[in-house]
Amino acid sequence: MSNTRIERDSMGELRVPEAALYGAQTQRAVDNFPISGKPMPVQFIRALILAKAAAARANVELKQISESQGKAIVDAAQGLLEGDFMQHFPVDIFQTGSGTSSNMNANEVIATLASRLLGEAVNPNDHVNCGQSSNDIIPTTIHVSAALALHEQLLPALVHLVQVIEHKAEQVHHHVKTGRTHLMDAMPVRMSQVLNGWAQQLKANIGHLQDLLPSLQSLAQGGTAVGTGINAHPQFAALFSQQLSKLTQVQFQPGKDLFALIGSQDTAVAVSGQLKATAVSLMKIANDLRWMNSGPLAGLGEIELEALQPGSSIMPGKVNPVIPEATAMVAAQVIGNDTVITIAGQSGNFELNVMLPIIAQNLLSSIELLANSSRLLGDKAIASFKVNEARLKEALSRNPILVTALNPIIGYQKAAEIAKKAYQQGRPVIDVALEHTDLSRSQLEELLNPEKLTAGGV
Amino acid sequence: MSNTRIERDSMGELRVPEAALYGAQTQRAVDNFPISGKPMPVQFIRALILAKAAAARANVELKQISESQGKAIVDAAQGLLEGDFMQHFPVDIFQTGSGTSSNMNANEVIATLASRLLGEAVNPNDHVNCGQSSNDIIPTTIHVSAALALHEQLLPALVHLVQVIEHKAEQVHHHVKTGRTHLMDAMPVRMSQVLNGWAQQLKANIGHLQDLLPSLQSLAQGGTAVGTGINAHPQFAALFSQQLSKLTQVQFQPGKDLFALIGSQDTAVAVSGQLKATAVSLMKIANDLRWMNSGPLAGLGEIELEALQPGSSIMPGKVNPVIPEATAMVAAQVIGNDTVITIAGQSGNFELNVMLPIIAQNLLSSIELLANSSRLLGDKAIASFKVNEARLKEALSRNPILVTALNPIIGYQKAAEIAKKAYQQGRPVIDVALEHTDLSRSQLEELLNPEKLTAGGV
Amino acid sequence: MSNTRIERDSMGELRVPEAALYGAQTQRAVDNFPISGKPMPVQFIRALILAKAAAARANVELKQISESQGKAIVDAAQGLLEGDFMQHFPVDIFQTGSGTSSNMNANEVIATLASRLLGEAVNPNDHVNCGQSSNDIIPTTIHVSAALALHEQLLPALVHLVQVIEHKAEQVHHHVKTGRTHLMDAMPVRMSQVLNGWAQQLKANIGHLQDLLPSLQSLAQGGTAVGTGINAHPQFAALFSQQLSKLTQVQFQPGKDLFALIGSQDTAVAVSGQLKATAVSLMKIANDLRWMNSGPLAGLGEIELEALQPGSSIMPGKVNPVIPEATAMVAAQVIGNDTVITIAGQSGNFELNVMLPIIAQNLLSSIELLANSSRLLGDKAIASFKVNEARLKEALSRNPILVTALNPIIGYQKAAEIAKKAYQQGRPVIDVALEHTDLSRSQLEELLNPEKLTAGGV
Amino acid sequence: MSNTRIERDSMGELRVPEAALYGAQTQRAVDNFPISGKPMPVQFIRALILAKAAAARANVELKQISESQGKAIVDAAQGLLEGDFMQHFPVDIFQTGSGTSSNMNANEVIATLASRLLGEAVNPNDHVNCGQSSNDIIPTTIHVSAALALHEQLLPALVHLVQVIEHKAEQVHHHVKTGRTHLMDAMPVRMSQVLNGWAQQLKANIGHLQDLLPSLQSLAQGGTAVGTGINAHPQFAALFSQQLSKLTQVQFQPGKDLFALIGSQDTAVAVSGQLKATAVSLMKIANDLRWMNSGPLAGLGEIELEALQPGSSIMPGKVNPVIPEATAMVAAQVIGNDTVITIAGQSGNFELNVMLPIIAQNLLSSIELLANSSRLLGDKAIASFKVNEARLKEALSRNPILVTALNPIIGYQKAAEIAKKAYQQGRPVIDVALEHTDLSRSQLEELLNPEKLTAGGV
Repeated sequence: MSNTRIERDSMGELRVPEAALYGAQTQRAVDNFPISGKPMPVQFIRALILAKAAAARANVELKQISESQGKAIVDAAQGLLEGDFMQHFPVDIFQTGSGTSSNMNANEVIATLASRLLGEAVNPNDHVNCGQSSNDIIPTTIHVSAALALHEQLLPALVHLVQVIEHKAEQVHHHVKTGRTHLMDAMPVRMSQVLNGWAQQLKANIGHLQDLLPSLQSLAQGGTAVGTGINAHPQFAALFSQQLSKLTQVQFQPGKDLFALIGSQDTAVAVSGQLKATAVSLMKIANDLRWMNSGPLAGLGEIELEALQPGSSIMPGKVNPVIPEATAMVAAQVIGNDTVITIAGQSGNFELNVMLPIIAQNLLSSIELLANSSRLLGDKAIASFKVNEARLKEALSRNPILVTALNPIIGYQKAAEIAKKAYQQGRPVIDVALEHTDLSRSQLEELLNPEKLTAGGV
Repeated sequence: MSNTRIERDSMGELRVPEAALYGAQTQRAVDNFPISGKPMPVQFIRALILAKAAAARANVELKQISESQGKAIVDAAQGLLEGDFMQHFPVDIFQTGSGTSSNMNANEVIATLASRLLGEAVNPNDHVNCGQSSNDIIPTTIHVSAALALHEQLLPALVHLVQVIEHKAEQVHHHVKTGRTHLMDAMPVRMSQVLNGWAQQLKANIGHLQDLLPSLQSLAQGGTAVGTGINAHPQFAALFSQQLSKLTQVQFQPGKDLFALIGSQDTAVAVSGQLKATAVSLMKIANDLRWMNSGPLAGLGEIELEALQPGSSIMPGKVNPVIPEATAMVAAQVIGNDTVITIAGQSGNFELNVMLPIIAQNLLSSIELLANSSRLLGDKAIASFKVNEARLKEALSRNPILVTALNPIIGYQKAAEIAKKAYQQGRPVIDVALEHTDLSRSQLEELLNPEKLTAGGV
Repeated sequence: MSNTRIERDSMGELRVPEAALYGAQTQRAVDNFPISGKPMPVQFIRALILAKAAAARANVELKQISESQGKAIVDAAQGLLEGDFMQHFPVDIFQTGSGTSSNMNANEVIATLASRLLGEAVNPNDHVNCGQSSNDIIPTTIHVSAALALHEQLLPALVHLVQVIEHKAEQVHHHVKTGRTHLMDAMPVRMSQVLNGWAQQLKANIGHLQDLLPSLQSLAQGGTAVGTGINAHPQFAALFSQQLSKLTQVQFQPGKDLFALIGSQDTAVAVSGQLKATAVSLMKIANDLRWMNSGPLAGLGEIELEALQPGSSIMPGKVNPVIPEATAMVAAQVIGNDTVITIAGQSGNFELNVMLPIIAQNLLSSIELLANSSRLLGDKAIASFKVNEARLKEALSRNPILVTALNPIIGYQKAAEIAKKAYQQGRPVIDVALEHTDLSRSQLEELLNPEKLTAGGV
Repeated sequence: MSNTRIERDSMGELRVPEAALYGAQTQRAVDNFPISGKPMPVQFIRALILAKAAAARANVELKQISESQGKAIVDAAQGLLEGDFMQHFPVDIFQTGSGTSSNMNANEVIATLASRLLGEAVNPNDHVNCGQSSNDIIPTTIHVSAALALHEQLLPALVHLVQVIEHKAEQVHHHVKTGRTHLMDAMPVRMSQVLNGWAQQLKANIGHLQDLLPSLQSLAQGGTAVGTGINAHPQFAALFSQQLSKLTQVQFQPGKDLFALIGSQDTAVAVSGQLKATAVSLMKIANDLRWMNSGPLAGLGEIELEALQPGSSIMPGKVNPVIPEATAMVAAQVIGNDTVITIAGQSGNFELNVMLPIIAQNLLSSIELLANSSRLLGDKAIASFKVNEARLKEALSRNPILVTALNPIIGYQKAAEIAKKAYQQGRPVIDVALEHTDLSRSQLEELLNPEKLTAGGV
């Protein structure tokens, strides 16, 4: 930081790097918060810049700033987004709880660029931040960035995963395998039934996430400092949402109650709760895959996942289910991110929640992690696994639990005796059943055919 | 347990209390699980009994059991529900992960009573459990009991709380108070704006909970052991839902994919996540109430909550905000219950999640706690608090932050100078503004009138 | 509640049941908090009664109450503990956050009994509560009840479990099984090594819990209302701890800083965190048992857990690992209880944490659940499982990963080639190694002997 | 990636960037895991490199590799550490659950550098990884990196914070303020008592963290693939710890049971639980500071925190408690990180936990965040706040709860009447007490002197 220039804000002067686009308040924040060394997420900064452009357009329409000021701000914002903008946003995640430092960072950077474009001073507070407060623009940016990330990243990734699973289900429909409850051998299921069950889990999550989009696309913007909208034009909220919708191709609207949207982070908590539910589903799917793939010889060995890398630095030839493992770790991280958002959500007081930066960080992290791992899980694990048909058949052939199918004919008690005897003597259940019932071998073969048993009721 | 009789199941004989309605499998479970000393929740057992009655009706319709057997089972179930049925359900929450012990407990108790009514043996497995497996009836019972508890308890309680808040908002509409962001004095808000913000938080939660009802009212029933529906009549699922809907006045239907509903507990995880979000909202409201009530003299002292009990065993005359405190503790417990359900949800393997009993327990606990505390919060705290108007006015009158309203006229920088000078000199902001601007006193009085400042934009 | 009598406290009169030992303040709390329907834990009430006896003895010694008053209080307390005392403690868990209602409940019940014994009025506040505040006696009772539960229940149960495991390890020492990393076949391990690893996990947890005992046995008593000790004799804290140590046989002492012990619940948070760690260990052990037991035919089938009850209401002959499942559910519940305590701990403000009742409830629940399930896990699962030696040997014999042992001789790269070929061709690794190395069959047999491979390094 | 070279591992050939120091396995991992875009933590990679150097030294001593190989490896490792080593470690956090990709990354980079230094091939597996497996070196690296971060960062930061607090306590000892329980006015406390309470909270956390150091400094190294130590020299574990202790100046030793240390991550779970407890303490302290600082006029206004930056983009002159807010957000994040580690810990199966990378990431994040924010909290908030004496005195002077001090003389009931009357009539308690007791004004002034009331018992 050899070359510096002097900047000033309402608290006085300080030095900032000569080349920095940002000004005094950003520099104060950089100095004040040497905590994580990590900036706010890219998705967040991008949404903040978009929001600044939308605000400028709305302010021009409402004659709060001049047309040339507005154009300069919009052009500055768009120019930023086309380049490597993150270098200009150095403020730490762990900063003021309102995210004011990030808001002022955006105001300062855009004001600098807009001033250059316009050839006259564009003020960070009075022009770029016109009609706004950190207290509405930061909650707005959380909603906008999360909504965009859901629309652009997670929902398409989950839909893709569902499609991969359903396609795979068709391919493996003919395979019948031992069902397992309590990890113990149970009645048979088709492999397609297993996969379609996973697909349905994900479809339910997609539906529940979509149910939350209207809340997420309702914005705090227009509430300014405390929800009353002090200093914003009464039509600002509506025009802002209109402009932002144009810029993003996602439909945003002003929230029903701006006090609720500034004073709480309930929507983020609800969305995070549903992301956590999605993580729980992925954990289950990833674990089923890991166990089906276990072995290859001393485990279940039902499927063989694609080999992606040597599995061990010491055990040659070992191949591990690395994609399901990464997915499971993503699930664990998303569950933890939800804890952060829960703690943050319940910490709010009065007119503003002041844990906004970590809500943004953890919410966007969850969406991105789930999106990226869902694609990988589909493409590098589910699409490409092979079924070990011989193992499936061998296991089915000696499963005494198939006797369940005889319950309606011989009763639970007698069926239990047959199953026990078959286990104890290590004999096929059909042979034992022949001895203990009046059913013929062909009747029993019909009744105990694993494939038919997957077709359900009598 | 002096007098016992001998009972027998597929594993052999054992002694049960002479007078017990239950049989061998219940007794084994009582012996096997001396862990928490707590039985499954009343709501759960009630739903299980209702499900048994619905199943009997469906089985009669499908001719799986005789009409007289069916009638006996239904009559036994209804008789049970009219009395103190919990005495017959002693199995611990911490039992087999499938809840099979509770299912067999219900099967045995109902079989005993039905046999007495019918005058001939009704079999727990073959008749009461006909067409069912623990693996579908227990997940079904989780959904049914939670749906009933939402419909009967929580949703009406939240609606009631909203109504109390909105009614109170009307009553206190004329009160203007200091807004607070970062706990620091900010622009003024109406007390009605604060309360309506809370109401909107709760309405959003109600909406999100309602969005989940269709999932919750979709049942695993008909999937039996592993989702394939082995041993259930193909029409059983539909008829069961029909009968249960009649019995409960809530609309249930068979799930789209029974494998997903047996292999996972995703719906419970999603519902619990939203209950947690509701808890987070209540925590915020409870804390705002506690702080507004703080004092009476050395705190904020904005309101006075109804005095319900002496507050201290040592400090005479002390009155504490006990209902908001109890509400906050409920919120904390619900957040913890959600952790249990999350851990349980992500623990599933293959065709059955085996943490069902704790999912039931924690889900129903959350619903009941939220329902009961929401009513109390409305009736014993919000409905009855008094506003300390003198304190509100005194605080407003000396708040330099009102200078914010001058930003559009004099700019942020100049406004900041005025505010600082007012703080430092302890003078009314209006006097300082008179000196540093061209605005007249009457203009300033108009611009800085707190009441007008709550009406939002310029 | 047909027969009532009139009681009075500092807020006025109200009716209490004729026969109730408690008085006005307990009744107010019963009326105020119809939330969970559940009283405070037995262990908590027991410790509170013991603390009241200890306080009375200390107060006599310090001449704060008369000898006859003190004797009456102590006798009343001991009489209570000998009977079914919980009937006298109806206050809900979700009450005032300080637990004042439970403290006054104890003061009132003991005052009533002591008055009867003494034949003259013993006052709940001035005599039973002498030198105390809810704000010190309730935090004290949390520490005392948890310390007693650790000493009497959990630590002995964990020690027992370790002994059972170590004894079993000796019995199964000769069994060698396939190790598994990433669920994939890895180098062999002795079954005793597996079990001793579990034992060491538990021993570490025991050690970490013991490290926290000094903190837990440090008491808030003597701080009274806010930590300053107002209205308590300066020597009360020391004498109280002395008396309580005599009554309980556990060594208690006054805390180093009473402000910290009243204003925070950090010790409870720390202990709960360690209980959660113990739960995590038990979850791992329970899951290993479940998977080793999986099958019996289509799973790993390495061991056979004792059959405790029929496993399915529909699948005859099925036996499930119910004790490990119950243990895993306990672990999940303890993890959730820890969340509650964490939320409660971080909610404190100023001189008093006001989430004390749920801290007590969740902490004691965790200790009891872990204690009871640990004993069951030892006695009904680990002590009695059988090893399926044939399965273990069969799996080992065809595990190409054993080639790892050749790394030091032939290098990782070549060993990998051998392992892959063995997998692909389904041939014994020893045969492939013979072809691709200079090692003789007898050398290879020596090098690849699974039993020797468990003895570690070269 | 214009210029590439061809590399090969046991799975075949692939292209890596021309200039990369790493080889085929790192490149596979880069390709396989495009998930978070974030590499493993610097502290982790540093510890891994140190461990590789220690291993090389031990292997030379045990003649497993040549002296020149060993020297090349050690020199390569040290050279790396002196530069910007993170550019060579691009593997994503969400990778294989064993961290094998990071281990191979280190093996490859060091092998490349060592080969250059030595002028002949040093093999990543056979030489750099000699006597090691990812399954022992990665758990070892978690312990080592966390132990170093505790010794170098967190413990000194907490000690510093304690010192700042205790120093400040001396400075503010003469200030007496209104105590608050349930947020309601309670008996007075000295400001030094408040601060010393905080200091004691932190000292207890320091003590509990130190209690866990012996576990953390016990290493899995020597267990290799599954705990048996296959392919490691029997003395390797001991020599490795010796060498590492020399390199780091922290005393490490081999774990008592390597199976437990590889199969579980219990120590990380325990340490994280205690970091969470520390976070809970900091949350309480940060919130107390925020509330004491609230206002400046319409809040408690007891202290004034140093102004570090303008507080609002819209409200001029506003100053917010940004450091306590950042601290509170750190606390929330650490609580969430603990959830991740808990989920990861309970996910282990058999001989290896495969959520190691996220355990490392979240554990080190928690330590670093707590360390950095503790220093800031001390230096930029506690050291520099000013006390608003006038406000403290004003509040004390009109607090009727001081009547508590009369309990021992006039009884709780009468004291309550006096307090109520004083509240209702807004009169000084001393005046009301004069009317209702026999005490003289001078006696009452003596008894109700706030400063004396902070000195505790009678």
